[in-house]
Amino acid sequence: MAQQEVQNGGAEKVAAEGVATVAFTAVKPQLLVEAPKANDAVLFYKAAFGAEEVGRTVYPKRKAEQENPLILSAELKLAGSTIIVSDHADDSAAPAKSTGSGGVVLCLETEDVGAAIAKAVSAGGVAEGEIVEGDGACCGGSVGKVKDPYGYVWLICSPGNKCAVPEA
Amino acid sequence: MAQQEVQNGGAEKVAAEGVATVAFTAVKPQLLVEAPKANDAVLFYKAAFGAEEVGRTVYPKRKAEQENPLILSAELKLAGSTIIVSDHADDSAAPAKSTGSGGVVLCLETEDVGAAIAKAVSAGGVAEGEIVEGDGACCGGSVGKVKDPYGYVWLICSPGNKCAVPEA
Repeated sequence: MAQQEVQNGGAEKVAAEGVATVAFTAVKPQLLVEAPKANDAVLFYKAAFGAEEVGRTVYPKRKAEQENPLILSAELKLAGSTIIVSDHADDSAAPAKSTGSGGVVLCLETEDVGAAIAKAVSAGGVAEGEIVEGDGACCGGSVGKVKDPYGYVWLICSPGNKCAVPEA
Repeated sequence: MAQQEVQNGGAEKVAAEGVATVAFTAVKPQLLVEAPKANDAVLFYKAAFGAEEVGRTVYPKRKAEQENPLILSAELKLAGSTIIVSDHADDSAAPAKSTGSGGVVLCLETEDVGAAIAKAVSAGGVAEGEIVEGDGACCGGSVGKVKDPYGYVWLICSPGNKCAVPEA
């Protein structure tokens, strides 16, 4: 029974105890470009700033007439940092949907998404939606969303799934 | 005469020749917080994400009743990257004034602001305003502004003047 409690309550326990010690491994501005212009934007950032695309995930094709799939996230290296460029479609189910920050959200990578969100909420942020797995919006294995008191949206994501050229 | 031409035309010449080889040393998201809440936002990012403030520049005090000067730029270290938090006042003369990106601009540091702007414009960006010196908005010695075709504003700045605790 005690063993079972540890198994069932482990994640929450770690999250609570980890509040003071959440470590972040990267912060990446994500530009939500009006669909379907994200690919053009990537080409522009390459030409204008010498950005290098290091990975891309796309939305599944859902319409026969849709020649090019929309970009869920294109990861660009620029000046030693990473920026993410995404198509922002009104019907998208991505966590970045309701940004409230006019086209830019900030992705924060951490190994402990739950603890990071708990800490941000305890500081005055508002969690929006659930932590979702593997949608790749933020190049992460799991992604949650926190809106800060100043209107900015932070995607808290685990760095598990790196962006890559999609198989499909 | 030839010598004089070189002296007078040097900057433009370097800018033109440098188009293909502009190097950027950092990209920093700048959050334009509705004045005077930038200081509160800095406190929140410290509490929520463990950000560390490494420097701050402020607007000159212009009103006697103004107890705390507005923040021109507070530089925060977060996850190995830098974000900048600024008070965004309607009457500010900062280059970030007309962002068009709803509260976030992207600062790109380079030693050669003129060449970087020329390259971005040749790729389809639109330069806005002149290159200005030493206003500290982007922690740079000189700052220019380019709006990209997707609505994002990039502040191209030289890393000359690091943010520091202001003397006044």
